[in-house]
Amino acid sequence: MKNIIIASTSTIHGSGYLDYILNDLAEFFKGIDEILFIPYARPSGISHDAYTEKANMAFSKINKSARGIHTYENPTEAVNNAKAIFIGGGNTFVLTNQLYKNNLISALQTAIKNGTPYLGTSAGSNICGLTIETTNDMPILYPPSFKALAFVPFNINPHYLDPDKNSKHMGETRETRIKEFHNFNNQPVIGLREGSWLHVKEDSIVLKGELTARVFEYNKLPYEVLSGTELNQLK
Amino acid sequence: MKNIIIASTSTIHGSGYLDYILNDLAEFFKGIDEILFIPYARPSGISHDAYTEKANMAFSKINKSARGIHTYENPTEAVNNAKAIFIGGGNTFVLTNQLYKNNLISALQTAIKNGTPYLGTSAGSNICGLTIETTNDMPILYPPSFKALAFVPFNINPHYLDPDKNSKHMGETRETRIKEFHNFNNQPVIGLREGSWLHVKEDSIVLKGELTARVFEYNKLPYEVLSGTELNQLK
Repeated sequence: MKNIIIASTSTIHGSGYLDYILNDLAEFFKGIDEILFIPYARPSGISHDAYTEKANMAFSKINKSARGIHTYENPTEAVNNAKAIFIGGGNTFVLTNQLYKNNLISALQTAIKNGTPYLGTSAGSNICGLTIETTNDMPILYPPSFKALAFVPFNINPHYLDPDKNSKHMGETRETRIKEFHNFNNQPVIGLREGSWLHVKEDSIVLKGELTARVFEYNKLPYEVLSGTELNQLK
Repeated sequence: MKNIIIASTSTIHGSGYLDYILNDLAEFFKGIDEILFIPYARPSGISHDAYTEKANMAFSKINKSARGIHTYENPTEAVNNAKAIFIGGGNTFVLTNQLYKNNLISALQTAIKNGTPYLGTSAGSNICGLTIETTNDMPILYPPSFKALAFVPFNINPHYLDPDKNSKHMGETRETRIKEFHNFNNQPVIGLREGSWLHVKEDSIVLKGELTARVFEYNKLPYEVLSGTELNQLK
């Protein structure tokens, strides 16, 4: 049975790494002592070791540990044998490229389909959608494909940001960018604000956290959904 | 002789399309009555016709006209025969994809090398660098390559935005993103603020406009350059 948390961010302004969601993670990872951490997205170019240590420090607060996938000789086997999996944030292109390079796409899909609990934050959440084409990240390298893990039948836009009406900057707003996406694609996009997450349990997809999320469906006006809303019908 | 304007943006807050740079364009396009416009980047999904009309309206203020490349049967011949070329902003991935699809990369490189004046704004400036890997745009479709026109031996980051120290948003700053780019690439990146442009005349590359630009070189601290600075040595 699928059991997935797709979180907008790892960190809320003014608190530590994963702090805002730790209580929920204690419940989510109940009975599991070690989580397989995939540090491929490398925020600010941090090493796999240093990034894993950061995740490990956070998990230690709920008496769990994180082990980096890069410490295994065979990453596919590490995924197959994992009790739980966490993919952290960073650069979505770097993450996607490394997942393809290490042939992990179908291994992850199988493991998650078979019930291995999965936590994603930021880039690790982008990769849960149909494609990475609604990431906010800079395309600093060219991955073999933009197709993602497709744990949910839509796309994710993490760190969703409302338009700043006072800005004099002429770059596109997030909403404009997602509308442009819908000129070439027709799957829905969920804009997850920082502090929000989706909890996927088999066929149920529920918005969690304190904030509303913004849903962009093809050929519809975007709309807000409240925390607690079931998004099972969205596709 | 190469003669190129690489502009951060088409439009400055509070003024009309191309207004801020029209006087310079009158001089740049002196003696040329018709400019070939490449509307492929389609900002907000605008049609090729509507986008061309927008460019045409702006050029009419300096007694010039724009004709869209989509109105020619053979786009390569349109480039070969153009007296001047303008590629406007929008989505860099959409633009890049269409340039590859229509086999225009080498035609543009040849025309510009042979002296056809070229104006780029935003996405049309991104494409002037070595790769599009420092675009701010959303990757709404998958182009066959991230390699760009390489009119200059570095990358462009248009609409460059300084970090907002008051922001509580946890997404990466532009500077962080460009630093991440340098974990995987070693060419310099020029962050062009809105209202700034580069004027390339054969071997001379000069920063124009009122603002400074931010230069990111591999393994160096980023630094500011003043308007009027020659950037010929940067590569």
